[in-house]
Amino acid sequence: MTDGRAVCVIGLGLIGGSLLRAAARDGRVVWGTTESTVDADSARKDGYDIASTVDEALSRAATEDALVVLAVPLPAVDGVLRRVRRFAPGCRLTDVVSVKAPVAEAVSRLAPGVRYVGGHPMAGTAKSGWAAGSADLFGGAAWVVAADEGLDLEVWADVATLALATGAVVVPAAIDEHDAAVARISHLPHVMAAVLATVGAAGGPLAMALAAGSFQDGTRVAGSPPELVIGMCEGNRAALLAAVDDALGRLGAARGSLASTGGLAATIRAGHQGRNSLDDHQAAEVTADLTDHDALAKLRELGRTGGRVVALIR
Amino acid sequence: MTDGRAVCVIGLGLIGGSLLRAAARDGRVVWGTTESTVDADSARKDGYDIASTVDEALSRAATEDALVVLAVPLPAVDGVLRRVRRFAPGCRLTDVVSVKAPVAEAVSRLAPGVRYVGGHPMAGTAKSGWAAGSADLFGGAAWVVAADEGLDLEVWADVATLALATGAVVVPAAIDEHDAAVARISHLPHVMAAVLATVGAAGGPLAMALAAGSFQDGTRVAGSPPELVIGMCEGNRAALLAAVDDALGRLGAARGSLASTGGLAATIRAGHQGRNSLDDHQAAEVTADLTDHDALAKLRELGRTGGRVVALIR
Repeated sequence: MTDGRAVCVIGLGLIGGSLLRAAARDGRVVWGTTESTVDADSARKDGYDIASTVDEALSRAATEDALVVLAVPLPAVDGVLRRVRRFAPGCRLTDVVSVKAPVAEAVSRLAPGVRYVGGHPMAGTAKSGWAAGSADLFGGAAWVVAADEGLDLEVWADVATLALATGAVVVPAAIDEHDAAVARISHLPHVMAAVLATVGAAGGPLAMALAAGSFQDGTRVAGSPPELVIGMCEGNRAALLAAVDDALGRLGAARGSLASTGGLAATIRAGHQGRNSLDDHQAAEVTADLTDHDALAKLRELGRTGGRVVALIR
Repeated sequence: MTDGRAVCVIGLGLIGGSLLRAAARDGRVVWGTTESTVDADSARKDGYDIASTVDEALSRAATEDALVVLAVPLPAVDGVLRRVRRFAPGCRLTDVVSVKAPVAEAVSRLAPGVRYVGGHPMAGTAKSGWAAGSADLFGGAAWVVAADEGLDLEVWADVATLALATGAVVVPAAIDEHDAAVARISHLPHVMAAVLATVGAAGGPLAMALAAGSFQDGTRVAGSPPELVIGMCEGNRAALLAAVDDALGRLGAARGSLASTGGLAATIRAGHQGRNSLDDHQAAEVTADLTDHDALAKLRELGRTGGRVVALIR
C-alpha cells in the first residue's frame, strides 16, 4: 500500500495529464486533481482517479506516501505550496515547471518541510489541456532533474525512476545551470522569433508574399499561444536577460561590421559553427550509481558535459 | 529560328541549371555555359547544349535573338556583363540574383545597351551545382520580376512568360521594394539564426543536450553553406542594415522591458501577430494586362499589396 511508488499529480494540463497517464501505464497507484472542471471531467471519463480538491489529493498523498508532482504554471505554484504545507508537509515533492530557481525558492519559503527535488521534462508547449496529453509525450525527451548539493538522494532516485518510466532520459543539472541553459535554447528562441516575425510583417504584404523557408522556420514558435510563452519567458527573467544581452551584443557586432566594412563573415561562420555543435552533439548515456559518496557532484558534471542517465543503481 | 523564345543561361548552378531544364521542357531552344567543368560535363551528359565559353554562348544569343539569363553569383556579375557588352550588346537580359539594385546598377554601368528586366526566383539556396537542380525547382515558387517605371514591357512579358512556364507565379515589384522585402524575410532570418546558434552553443554541452524544437527551427538555416549566405547577405547591405536596425531596436526594447518591469507581453504579442500575418496572407492571383497604358504602375501596386500574376495579356 505504501511502497513509495504512488504518484499524486497536481494540475492535469498537457504535462500533468501526460504524466498521470504514463505513471498509470507503469503500474503505479496514481491520482490527480485540477482546478479545470473540463479537464477533471475528461480525465475521469478516461478512467482516472481524480480528487475533487487539491486538499483532498494532498491529504491522500500524505497518508499513502505518494510522490507529489506540481504540474501547474509558475504563477500558481505559491498557492499550491501553501496547501502542501498544510496537508502534506513532509511529502516527497517534485515539479515540471520550465524554470527551477523560482520554484526552489518558493518551496524553501512556503513548504520548508517537504523533501523537494525539482524536475523539467523538455516536452512541447504548443498545445495545452488534458485532451492534448498522451502517455507517450515524454518518449525520448530530456527530463532535467535538479542535482544541487544537499538534495535528498532517495527522492532524487524516485523522481529519476519516474522520469525513466515515462520513456524520458534524465539530464541531471544544478538549477542555476539549468535555468541559464534553457534561457539560451528555449526562451531566447521565442524572443528572437517574435522580433523576427514583427520585423518581417512590418515589410507589408510584399514581404509576406515572398517569405519562404528561412522566415517560416525562424518564426514558427511565434505561432505558439502568447500567454504560455510570456509566462515561460518572464519566469526565467534573470537568466533570459543574460541571454538577450548576449544576443544583442552579437547582433550589434554584426550591424557594426555590415555598416563599416560590409562584412558578415564572422557572424555567419560563428552561427554555422554553433549549429554544427547542435548537430554533432553526442550524449553519453550512463547508469548512475547513487551509492557513490559523491553522487550528486558526479551527476552535475555528467549533465554539464552533455550526458544523460538511462538507468540507476540505488 | 528567331521566334524570341530561345533562352541562353550563363551559369549552371542550382538555379541556372534548373532553369535550363525547365525551359527545355517548355519546348524552347536552350543552351547554357558555366565556368565549372564538373557542371558542364554533367549537363552535357544529361543531353543539354553547353557552350565552351561565355563568349560563344553570348555570340549565339545575339545571332538567335535569345533571352539571356545571368545565373551567376553577384560577385561574378560584372565580369559577365563585360562579355555581354562585347558579344550581345543589344540583347534581352534578365538575371536570377537575390538582390536587384546592385545588378541593375552594374547593367547600366557595364552594358547600357541591353534591354534588361531583373528577376529573382525565390527558390532554395541550401544545395548548389548542376546535380542539385531540377526542372521542378520553381513549381509554385514566387518569381519576382522587376517592374520599375521605364522598363521595356516586351522584355517584361518575355521574362514573366518564362517564369510562368517553369511553374512559378510572378510577383512584380520595384527593385528597391524587392530588396527591402527580402532583407526582412530572407537575409535577416539568416543573421538572426546565426546569432541564436552562437548564443545557444555558448551555453555549452548542457544547452545542446536540452535544445528542442524552438532552437532547432530557429537555427536551421545557420546550417546552410556559409559562403552562400555571406554573399547573399552582403550583397543586400543597405536594405539589410535597415532590417537589422529594426531588429536591434525591437530586441533592445524587449531587453529594457524585461529588465525594468519583467514584462515581455508586448514583444511576444507583436510577434504572434506578425506570424499570423504570414499564416493569413492571401495572394490575389491576376491576369496582367500589359496593353494597359499604366501597366507597370499597376503591376507594382499588385506586388506591393501581396498579389501575383498567373497569366498575361500581351
